[in-house]
Amino acid sequence: MITRAEQRRARKRAAQMIRESGIRVNEEEADKIEVVDFGLSHLEIEGVQVLTLVQTERISVKVLVLLPNQTEPEHWHPPVGEDPGKEETIRVVSGTVCFYVQGENTFNQGFLVKDKQKYYTMMHEIILKPGDQITLQPGEKHWFQAHEDGAVMYGFSTVARDALDQFTDPDIVRIVKVVDE
Amino acid sequence: MITRAEQRRARKRAAQMIRESGIRVNEEEADKIEVVDFGLSHLEIEGVQVLTLVQTERISVKVLVLLPNQTEPEHWHPPVGEDPGKEETIRVVSGTVCFYVQGENTFNQGFLVKDKQKYYTMMHEIILKPGDQITLQPGEKHWFQAHEDGAVMYGFSTVARDALDQFTDPDIVRIVKVVDE
Repeated sequence: MITRAEQRRARKRAAQMIRESGIRVNEEEADKIEVVDFGLSHLEIEGVQVLTLVQTERISVKVLVLLPNQTEPEHWHPPVGEDPGKEETIRVVSGTVCFYVQGENTFNQGFLVKDKQKYYTMMHEIILKPGDQITLQPGEKHWFQAHEDGAVMYGFSTVARDALDQFTDPDIVRIVKVVDE
Repeated sequence: MITRAEQRRARKRAAQMIRESGIRVNEEEADKIEVVDFGLSHLEIEGVQVLTLVQTERISVKVLVLLPNQTEPEHWHPPVGEDPGKEETIRVVSGTVCFYVQGENTFNQGFLVKDKQKYYTMMHEIILKPGDQITLQPGEKHWFQAHEDGAVMYGFSTVARDALDQFTDPDIVRIVKVVDE
């Protein structure tokens, strides 16, 4: 869970980082930025901030923000009914992103979240800088992490059903619980 | 048709406008910018420049550039096999775009291409500024035009099959012919 104050603060930082990256967002959009702690209650360690620009029954466009040294936990997009699962391209706008997928262990520039090593199993490292992008097929496990300057990315995908994403860490709950202080 | 010199020049201008809008593109991407004259051989009047960032069997992300006062002719995205047709969201990054769709005639800030009035039938005007966006359903006729400063837009969509787009102007050919001088 996160508190209203945490949500407000993370939203504000994310909106500022998005604007500094050159992406124009209006106030209404900034107020809708989703602050996701994955039910782990340590937002600045594992979490993500999400601004949804397009969400239809067929496609989704999001701006993803990682705060400095924040990690989005390992997950994948499973098939849903007739949909083979979400196909997603992440394109970096600002900052450096350490991206991890299936393949030879080349882990080098990132770090593992303390006491969570077993929930991070993909160790093939791809460093993405502004203008770089990676396309993930449905079902492909991945996780990613920002350096100390944080990162802003686009997420272009087929229809997003975030609540049905699957995570390696069994403690994760995708629905965010916000509590009043 | 366009000449190699025209293609080169329009590509260079488009790359510059994209970069000035804040979107980072590498040299390889800039060299692939598609310069489209719709077979009308007057690129600066009716035409568009297109940088494709993502093109899979399911989604497409493009950066569309209109040169100053350039018009993208009226067209729509028809069904193809089991696909109901392309669904598309245009989001403006820089410049002002006069967008025209079905609805009450509110034509005001744009202009009609000389001798082509009959091929522009949608007259409901929507003015889009940076950060504004519009979503078009499959089959929905539309055309759009830049003011004197040109415009850069994202086009987020389901799978694009540009060669199958349909145009009101029967003289239009979507496949571009480039000739050596």
